[in-house]
Amino acid sequence: MAETYEDQQDILGDVVQLFWKKGYSGCSMEELVQATGASRYRFYEYFGSKRALFLAALDYYHAYHFQPPLSIIADEDAGLDEIKAFFARRTLHACSEQGRYGCMIFNSFSDPGAFDLDVALQLRSYRNPLLTLFIKALQNGQTAGTVRNDVSASSLAAQLYNQLFSMMSLSRLKDHEDIIEQSVHATLKGLETTDKSKLASEIRKQLSALNRQATTR
Amino acid sequence: MAETYEDQQDILGDVVQLFWKKGYSGCSMEELVQATGASRYRFYEYFGSKRALFLAALDYYHAYHFQPPLSIIADEDAGLDEIKAFFARRTLHACSEQGRYGCMIFNSFSDPGAFDLDVALQLRSYRNPLLTLFIKALQNGQTAGTVRNDVSASSLAAQLYNQLFSMMSLSRLKDHEDIIEQSVHATLKGLETTDKSKLASEIRKQLSALNRQATTR
Repeated sequence: MAETYEDQQDILGDVVQLFWKKGYSGCSMEELVQATGASRYRFYEYFGSKRALFLAALDYYHAYHFQPPLSIIADEDAGLDEIKAFFARRTLHACSEQGRYGCMIFNSFSDPGAFDLDVALQLRSYRNPLLTLFIKALQNGQTAGTVRNDVSASSLAAQLYNQLFSMMSLSRLKDHEDIIEQSVHATLKGLETTDKSKLASEIRKQLSALNRQATTR
Repeated sequence: MAETYEDQQDILGDVVQLFWKKGYSGCSMEELVQATGASRYRFYEYFGSKRALFLAALDYYHAYHFQPPLSIIADEDAGLDEIKAFFARRTLHACSEQGRYGCMIFNSFSDPGAFDLDVALQLRSYRNPLLTLFIKALQNGQTAGTVRNDVSASSLAAQLYNQLFSMMSLSRLKDHEDIIEQSVHATLKGLETTDKSKLASEIRKQLSALNRQATTR
């Protein structure tokens, strides 16, 4: 049983590379079988159909490609710095040769061949935990006074989700590096607290200085 | 000649509906011919190939669907209010039944079947004027003091481009209305000037009040 599981995981590792780069409709079952070196019999024994194989490949991609970079914002105390570090790394990735393939999960959103109700439900099961991570880190930032609090953490999280989706999608085109870098900069800058609180403490300091002057006069 | 042109435009109007909703790979030439009621002979006489037909359809879509909503920010004096009005209307559209089809131009970015060098060049020819429109309106806002000026207009324009791309792409999925509305809210809020100048005048007022108190004591 354990061997079978490892066997399946090996096959999925190869299958993911193909689905990721060529899309669901772009891969024939024949091509997938050939790429993994497994037998057609084993494929159907393990996965039943191309559709089931794709759903398993999405889970594999999510676990081994999508989740690991998120660890940086998954920390209990993660805040604005971790969000910035996460997007800095995603920007590097998006603007690299690897970025040309986009993200297998986000790609599936816009692949009419791939998309059906099962895929939709699976994609949603990846989305909500991601939003929860963003919200937690943003709330930590709001508590620490680094993230603006005149916009709700859930709206800011939706914005980060959009930013991630668009940069990992636009990265599939050759000439969007500039757009990606500039938009990330603007989005992260937009998270920052306005200078209100800094200025409020400046007011207080100046007022107490003036008070001291007034009483010692 | 004039009649031929009108004839072509009529055909393109029908063709656009199909390409838009089903994608390049999702439409066969047979289906396209049938949908327009034109003859196969006329199709090839006018457009040469499915590829050439698609390029002509993109231009048609750009002229009759993509450009018109932009008129609101194309005004010489357009600023933050016009940017907000534009995104409010795009949000309504994205969250409507029509939004399910996304945007034919942005859809082509992620359709592996549609995308080649000719398409890429054509898409770029739509992108730059759009960025220019955003930059102009943002600069007007910066001059008027309504748009933040600690981030360049070109970075903010890249962010708006990303926002538009992601909302018109995520709208193809059923359950992203909330993400779209919240992210638009956060993005527009992030454009606004910080409260620095308002607070500075508040400081000044309070200080002079204290000064008056100190001198009359």
